[in-house]
Amino acid sequence: MTAASTAAAAGTRAGRPGAGAGPLDALFRPASIAVVGASARAGKAGHAMVQALRHYPGTLHLVNPRGGEVLGRPAITTLRDASDVDLAVLVVPPDAVPGALEDARDAGVRAAVVCAGGFAESGPAGAALQDRVVRVAQEAGIRLLGPNTSGFMNPVDRTTANFMPAVADLAPGSVGVVAQSGGVNLAVAFLLARAGVGLRLGVGLGNAVDVDFPEVLDHLAQDDATTAVGLHVEGVADGPALVAALRRTTARKPVVAFKVGRSDVSAFAQSHTGALTGSYAVTRAALQQAGAVVVDSLEEMVAALVALRAVRLPAAGDVGVGLLTGQAGPGLVVTDALGARGVALPTLTAATQERIAELLPPLTFQRNPVDTGRPSPTFGDVLRAVADDPAVDLVGVYALDEPGALDPVAALAPVAGRVLFASGGPADALAARRAALDAVGVPVLASPGDLATALAAVVSDARVRAVADAPPVPATRTVGRTLDEYEAKTLLEHYGVRTPARRVATDRAQARAALADLVRDGGRTVVKVLDTAVVHKSDVGGVHVGVHDAAGLERALDAIDAIPPAHAPAPAARRYLLEELAEPGAELIVGAVRDRVFGPVVLLGLGGVAAELGGEPVLRLAPLSVARSEEMVRALPATVLDGFRGAPPVDVAALAAVLRAVGQVVCDHADVTELDLNPVRMTADGPVVLDAVVVAPPKGDTCPA
Amino acid sequence: MTAASTAAAAGTRAGRPGAGAGPLDALFRPASIAVVGASARAGKAGHAMVQALRHYPGTLHLVNPRGGEVLGRPAITTLRDASDVDLAVLVVPPDAVPGALEDARDAGVRAAVVCAGGFAESGPAGAALQDRVVRVAQEAGIRLLGPNTSGFMNPVDRTTANFMPAVADLAPGSVGVVAQSGGVNLAVAFLLARAGVGLRLGVGLGNAVDVDFPEVLDHLAQDDATTAVGLHVEGVADGPALVAALRRTTARKPVVAFKVGRSDVSAFAQSHTGALTGSYAVTRAALQQAGAVVVDSLEEMVAALVALRAVRLPAAGDVGVGLLTGQAGPGLVVTDALGARGVALPTLTAATQERIAELLPPLTFQRNPVDTGRPSPTFGDVLRAVADDPAVDLVGVYALDEPGALDPVAALAPVAGRVLFASGGPADALAARRAALDAVGVPVLASPGDLATALAAVVSDARVRAVADAPPVPATRTVGRTLDEYEAKTLLEHYGVRTPARRVATDRAQARAALADLVRDGGRTVVKVLDTAVVHKSDVGGVHVGVHDAAGLERALDAIDAIPPAHAPAPAARRYLLEELAEPGAELIVGAVRDRVFGPVVLLGLGGVAAELGGEPVLRLAPLSVARSEEMVRALPATVLDGFRGAPPVDVAALAAVLRAVGQVVCDHADVTELDLNPVRMTADGPVVLDAVVVAPPKGDTCPA
Repeated sequence: MTAASTAAAAGTRAGRPGAGAGPLDALFRPASIAVVGASARAGKAGHAMVQALRHYPGTLHLVNPRGGEVLGRPAITTLRDASDVDLAVLVVPPDAVPGALEDARDAGVRAAVVCAGGFAESGPAGAALQDRVVRVAQEAGIRLLGPNTSGFMNPVDRTTANFMPAVADLAPGSVGVVAQSGGVNLAVAFLLARAGVGLRLGVGLGNAVDVDFPEVLDHLAQDDATTAVGLHVEGVADGPALVAALRRTTARKPVVAFKVGRSDVSAFAQSHTGALTGSYAVTRAALQQAGAVVVDSLEEMVAALVALRAVRLPAAGDVGVGLLTGQAGPGLVVTDALGARGVALPTLTAATQERIAELLPPLTFQRNPVDTGRPSPTFGDVLRAVADDPAVDLVGVYALDEPGALDPVAALAPVAGRVLFASGGPADALAARRAALDAVGVPVLASPGDLATALAAVVSDARVRAVADAPPVPATRTVGRTLDEYEAKTLLEHYGVRTPARRVATDRAQARAALADLVRDGGRTVVKVLDTAVVHKSDVGGVHVGVHDAAGLERALDAIDAIPPAHAPAPAARRYLLEELAEPGAELIVGAVRDRVFGPVVLLGLGGVAAELGGEPVLRLAPLSVARSEEMVRALPATVLDGFRGAPPVDVAALAAVLRAVGQVVCDHADVTELDLNPVRMTADGPVVLDAVVVAPPKGDTCPA
Repeated sequence: MTAASTAAAAGTRAGRPGAGAGPLDALFRPASIAVVGASARAGKAGHAMVQALRHYPGTLHLVNPRGGEVLGRPAITTLRDASDVDLAVLVVPPDAVPGALEDARDAGVRAAVVCAGGFAESGPAGAALQDRVVRVAQEAGIRLLGPNTSGFMNPVDRTTANFMPAVADLAPGSVGVVAQSGGVNLAVAFLLARAGVGLRLGVGLGNAVDVDFPEVLDHLAQDDATTAVGLHVEGVADGPALVAALRRTTARKPVVAFKVGRSDVSAFAQSHTGALTGSYAVTRAALQQAGAVVVDSLEEMVAALVALRAVRLPAAGDVGVGLLTGQAGPGLVVTDALGARGVALPTLTAATQERIAELLPPLTFQRNPVDTGRPSPTFGDVLRAVADDPAVDLVGVYALDEPGALDPVAALAPVAGRVLFASGGPADALAARRAALDAVGVPVLASPGDLATALAAVVSDARVRAVADAPPVPATRTVGRTLDEYEAKTLLEHYGVRTPARRVATDRAQARAALADLVRDGGRTVVKVLDTAVVHKSDVGGVHVGVHDAAGLERALDAIDAIPPAHAPAPAARRYLLEELAEPGAELIVGAVRDRVFGPVVLLGLGGVAAELGGEPVLRLAPLSVARSEEMVRALPATVLDGFRGAPPVDVAALAAVLRAVGQVVCDHADVTELDLNPVRMTADGPVVLDAVVVAPPKGDTCPA
């Protein structure tokens, strides 16, 4: 599907001036560029592209079939007349792209940006054209960005190949942006600029027929000048490749990811880059599991990048945040927003509180948050006391910019690297402060909400790296077909999962014998219809709880036999499952699916009505490590973990083992598409699976391990 | 509690230059100001306050007991030496405030701002001092803002009395801000400034011992130069007064409200302005019911105000939003964010789509959102087509600022008043665009997320005004004591609520007779213990469902008699309730409480586990109008309304009637503090109350109608 392998070879050609040895250097750091479709007419994309490259320091060829001049530079009539071109930027109509790529090949071009839309996102004809473009590029060994993108910006090397001219003046910096959409790439770049953050590289992937998320992430991971990366995701073509690249990247620098698709936007998304948005919940879970800080908006992404490009904490499951405020009202807003994000402020130690009491008048709140009242000369000392508290890893400071009352640089510089600052005041004063504080390593946020977002992002970045995942495993088996409840439970037992003692009966005599066997010690049973075709057994009278004598059994079997044939196999073929009745306890749902994009995913959710009314299940990619499975259990609401409505508390280790087993079943069996354990009861003796089904279509597909 | 009545009289004194006839004009539009505590020392609040008033055009007296000069102006040694002072700004320590107020009284001062903290928020001594301050001000007829506030800003009249000097240069405009916290007032004012929005009046209430939310809201409601109001609420002293003032204000102009306290911030909040934050959910419900647009952050408040200060739609339950984008990626982000806020984009009519198809190449999405691809000269015509669609009331436009490709002013001006614009690009270019678009009545947002927030705010403002509320009613009755289930249901029946046929039995003979009576037509019954002391009847074996014969009844009564005395009255005193078994259906919870701040509140929630796991109930202030009660029912999740898990669909009118009845019970009875109908079953014949309790403490309190 991509030209990656061919072009990777091309990338190893002897380096030219400006173009490094990395596989994408010819694209993002070209020594020479040709703009094909350069236009003298203002307003045309081919005109804007030349304007955008006005500060480009390398060799710039302009190509226009009519020749002439574009913005004072002579245009050549064909790309074939150029030589030593690293990058061809094609600002031509879609139909002209294959021909332009052939010209590029003949001119020895190594990479191309294709701006035009009208490819796969527009329908079958466009898809065919796109296939042709991919073929030509692959055969030519040309790396391709797009089609259907506005381009990229590399302000550090003054290489801003994008059809929005203002990109030429974007400030260089250390933040990388990888956006599925060229428009979002631009939007984020300018939002970052307004936040005072310079750009290392901003890329709009467009249809991503060749250069895609994984390779750009690796490019940024390898680039020491990049200190943080923002990721905008609509849909993902290759989940495991993205996850692997993200793991490599987040091991070296923070990544902040925003996934589109919280609500249903599929029709519009399909028409846009041709990418289906995929499962929002699974994609977010995968991004986070791979180490990314997942945010809810582009604005949050910007606030997170402001902080994370300069402040990254060591991996830690628990991160203590201190908050110091010069004005209590905004401080309260920050505290509230942090609490809503699950970031609590630990109470400072007695020693710290004593120290602060020496520094502040007694009227202020000094436990964390610490409110100084109007900033006084002791502000810096108070900050140091908070930052040095053993419970505090990271400090947020909010103070209005009051010249004379507070010198933020003097106060904050001593704790740079573990402090974020937010302030209010006139824009120009703030910009000046920001520059001075940036210079000493203190990020500056523009509002109380942004400070909370940024603090939460730094905490999240440390937390997501604290849990190690198990490596992928190849599937080596199949189950052959969908398993009924008895078979599914037997399979789960082989993976160490506890299920009730049970017997299958194909007629009433067997059922009576099974009952006698199961109630020998005075127990009670559950009698159920046994067939994979019966989906909601309870709803059709197929489940009878508490059966313990012959009369009860006959009633239960009568009811099962009376299930209308529309809901169950023919009465003659009916089978019964008798099980020991389990101990009481809260009930959860455990399951797994093979996601189309990301492969095996384990889910843990609340049972019954809560689940169906929007209680989000916890999702994680399988296979699960011990640490990951326990983290997954702990993501349940505390009310459930602690024992809901008098139920026994959840045995975290035992439930985590069930989750690992379920993940393993899907990973091991290439044909299993879904596993439902519903419910799993949290008894005092640990979790017991009360119902289960293992779904495998007749023909198995392979496990994308 | 306030000096309002005294000072309202003072406010009718003959007007002076600058000070109008309104009750707060002497405070916010004074013809002369005295700064008491003016200081020559940089960094002191009394210095900053004088700096902040540097553009004040009226008479400015500086008062310092040592005399001398402050910032080049001579200081008088006592306020008594000044005359004709409208407003005294007291920048003195808390202990000095009562004396300063006495001086102010003697000098004929009409209003005062008290900046110092150290009053009720700091403990009992401060509270006593605060009482003294209130007494002095009341006796003197001086209106008082604060204490514990940074002050206020009225840039239109260049009257910026705040201890942050930069406020002197805030741009005048049409937005009013009423913040509980002086720090938040400043933060919002500067966030608005950065969004290009000028301020009409910004007020920090502080401890609000006199001037409070209601009066400032009325001041802004009456001020024709104010076009929108932002409200920051920590806690509310007088709920009904706030609701009434908000209703008066929102009838004339939009109000955007942010309530602190989503997470538990009570300890810090108490230390701040002394205001407890109260119920977050009830306060938000009350604000919205009174017509405010309720937002989740200060940043959202700013985006909403950017839009609503210029664009307000007529009240409407259903508002159609059209979205036009020059770049599909950001458009998708906006669409997604709108969807997450419950704002769907209606499909454009066939006629509109045909018109757009003439204007745009076929590759773009044209149903709504409409994506133009890179903006072309037809952009304005496409916009007009979208805006003129019968399904569209409001249009959002996102387009990058590409000079030459799009002239936003020419394109958007024709639909001003029903369009919001957002763009990306360099800050200076954007500011210029913003000014030009503002001039023609088109608000400009800074990002895709802000556009979604702003569109949702305009929609919400129209929606919240579409439902009329019932007027408050005085309580005229009492119930005397907490009612048991039988009595509670009987009371509800009097209010037209359907309950099952039932009998009370005090012994077994009565129970047998009751059973015979209830099962006469072959029905079944529920047998329950009847006593208000038994809280969770089911948990102790006090509820027996399906009893239909003598044996079953005896078993049920045995079980009830066996309830340990710890959970129920002495066995000898036990009473039984026998009821007809209700038809099946989904179960909801209906209730009411008398909120400490806002009075009677009706709640509607999901039953069982869903409720306890964080499913937020729908809350509305009582009494409920028909429209309000039906709106309340329709706020339930669609899955529930449509008939959850095969249950019959909810009868909206019938459930709404139950809600009205419950609200009426609390409003009518001064001593009822709580009503729980749990569950109410949604049968095919309408809602039936299966259990109910009416709580009234022995001594009733009065209904804050």
